[in-house]
Amino acid sequence: MSDYLPGLEGVPATQSNISDIDGEKGILSYRGYPISELASKSTFEETCLLLLDGQLPSAHDLAVFDEQLRRNRRVKYNIRTLMKALPSTGHPMEILQTSVASLGMFYPANECLTDPESCKDLDYVHNMTVKIIARMPVLMCMWEHIRRGYDPIEPRNDLTFSENLLYMLTGNEPEPVFVDIMDTCLILHAEHTINASTFAALVTGSTLASPYGVMAAAIGTLAGPLHGGANEKVVDMLKDIGEPKNAKAWLDKKLANKEKIWGMGHREYKVKDPRATILQGLFEKLVTERGGEISPSFEIALALEAAAEERLAAKGVFPNVDFYSGILYAEMGIPTDQFTPIFAVSRAAGWLAHWREQLVDNRIFRPTQVYTGEPVRTYEPLSQRG
Amino acid sequence: MSDYLPGLEGVPATQSNISDIDGEKGILSYRGYPISELASKSTFEETCLLLLDGQLPSAHDLAVFDEQLRRNRRVKYNIRTLMKALPSTGHPMEILQTSVASLGMFYPANECLTDPESCKDLDYVHNMTVKIIARMPVLMCMWEHIRRGYDPIEPRNDLTFSENLLYMLTGNEPEPVFVDIMDTCLILHAEHTINASTFAALVTGSTLASPYGVMAAAIGTLAGPLHGGANEKVVDMLKDIGEPKNAKAWLDKKLANKEKIWGMGHREYKVKDPRATILQGLFEKLVTERGGEISPSFEIALALEAAAEERLAAKGVFPNVDFYSGILYAEMGIPTDQFTPIFAVSRAAGWLAHWREQLVDNRIFRPTQVYTGEPVRTYEPLSQRG
Repeated sequence: MSDYLPGLEGVPATQSNISDIDGEKGILSYRGYPISELASKSTFEETCLLLLDGQLPSAHDLAVFDEQLRRNRRVKYNIRTLMKALPSTGHPMEILQTSVASLGMFYPANECLTDPESCKDLDYVHNMTVKIIARMPVLMCMWEHIRRGYDPIEPRNDLTFSENLLYMLTGNEPEPVFVDIMDTCLILHAEHTINASTFAALVTGSTLASPYGVMAAAIGTLAGPLHGGANEKVVDMLKDIGEPKNAKAWLDKKLANKEKIWGMGHREYKVKDPRATILQGLFEKLVTERGGEISPSFEIALALEAAAEERLAAKGVFPNVDFYSGILYAEMGIPTDQFTPIFAVSRAAGWLAHWREQLVDNRIFRPTQVYTGEPVRTYEPLSQRG
Repeated sequence: MSDYLPGLEGVPATQSNISDIDGEKGILSYRGYPISELASKSTFEETCLLLLDGQLPSAHDLAVFDEQLRRNRRVKYNIRTLMKALPSTGHPMEILQTSVASLGMFYPANECLTDPESCKDLDYVHNMTVKIIARMPVLMCMWEHIRRGYDPIEPRNDLTFSENLLYMLTGNEPEPVFVDIMDTCLILHAEHTINASTFAALVTGSTLASPYGVMAAAIGTLAGPLHGGANEKVVDMLKDIGEPKNAKAWLDKKLANKEKIWGMGHREYKVKDPRATILQGLFEKLVTERGGEISPSFEIALALEAAAEERLAAKGVFPNVDFYSGILYAEMGIPTDQFTPIFAVSRAAGWLAHWREQLVDNRIFRPTQVYTGEPVRTYEPLSQRG
């Protein structure tokens, strides 16, 4: 038996050709393409197809996929009924897990349930993938209205993925700069090697469970405060600071007490997280575009970033992807508790790419344990116990 | 980096003192107590508490737990509304995953979401565990009626766990022999070291996700045809045999073609699965009690068992736990697609015991990968692609 390594740290759980992190050079690549190139040159739709198929699509294949995504946005009205039965206090991640789990009944994966081997059929896999990627943002946006007592905004198929997401969320056609930001955020969060939620997708997928069940497992895993949710904490942190002039003193106090500063540093990267650099560019662009009209929390973020630059950059600690994405989402008026669902909408592409890869060369996950319990002992009848 | 072992076979993923399998001697023990003793002397309620707390409870603690389970059977009417919105064709495992995921909104785990550290509070953990173990059979039985167009049968708190399960499923007070069989089946399926669904619970739980999200991940994993579901296949197999007199020839043909025979053999045990021996006793008891009035499929099962004894026992291949549990459930009139949900109702005890153990010494699961993909390459604009 191999050594026991808590959290399986450093233990290879799979062979994968989807993404790679070069922590020394600060390069995250999807199928070999650096994230910096994808963020500036690609779209979320194209990035999905790249992650799924392994190469950049032809113009024709991209157009077909884009059309498939647009045609799969509508959801049956009983899903609205289901959501209306849920308490309005439900966290959007709980709603997403519940509604994605239900999706399999409305858009069945029958081929898979009746014949395990057909799970490996790439047409089936692609079909399921489209149904899920297209509908996840729709489910997320439906809840934003239903929890407030309103009917959801119907999806529009004349809009891109990111345009439609923002449109359904707010009911208004979004400003182009917000569409750019959202599309970039979706590209940046779509995949990040084997993290806890992606691993959960592999484990669940390895029993040949339905892709909806696989996604529900991954969503439930991402919902944990140790995984998704750091960008929500950034917004709370800015509220805690209160005013831009407090930022420096607040940071010094936290550093002196060795407390965690949300949205700073990343264990995978020895240099600056490439995703943070990209978002920082968008952040600066938005500041320029907005001139003096930026929000108070945005000003606090700028002050905190300047203070962190002074104190932490020399130690290799930089604002990371969570620092900027939270601030940018808040600036678009997106409620804080929808940040992790947006992460899930994006990461669904990576989860499904890993699900597909798992099916092609599947082996059920059944690790072992180090048993530390009692040796075999004799049962004592209830009457003889203390 | 350690070697890559597909499915993490033989890789210890956790230290655990919950259950152990001695495959040479054919002993499965929960907290040190052999399953044969628990099956004949314990109840499902007591077995749950044993798995959760680590020792056999006092009479007082058992009475308190039993009362807690009885008081947590009712579910809010909006859960019924939710189920009524789901397609009547929905598989009971999809329903169970969806409704358990929703349960967290109706009976929130707020302590956990607001303060990750409180996840480790044993009162909180016990409280959540009771809410889930008590309600899983209720959700399962509700669907049996709702999918047929009827309102569910209300739970009764004057019945034991197994009595109430059978009562809610059928609407009738069950025969004592069926209660015995059900309670024994629940004890036997409650725990079995680190299998795929238990492992999924650990991975999801390691992000400090809510226990409802953890259970939904485990249910989705168990639903896969490579994990749960073998006892359903046994019933299909008996239908395929058609008549008792066909059993021998059918078995010989399968063996000659090296086809899988469902419900026979188990990779963890070198000798007979102790759970099969226990169920075989119940099976024989039921045959005796019923005299000549046994059902045709039961007769086929008896004929197949006799044929298997002759052909396979010498090779160490015996009917396993799935062979007998499927037949016994069918004999109680339980629909085939509810067999895996019963497995989930029972295994919830083991999943929650492992969830608790994970929280006490938590480390997020983040294994690594062997990257087999493209080296870093340059993005080609759409216009330059084939």
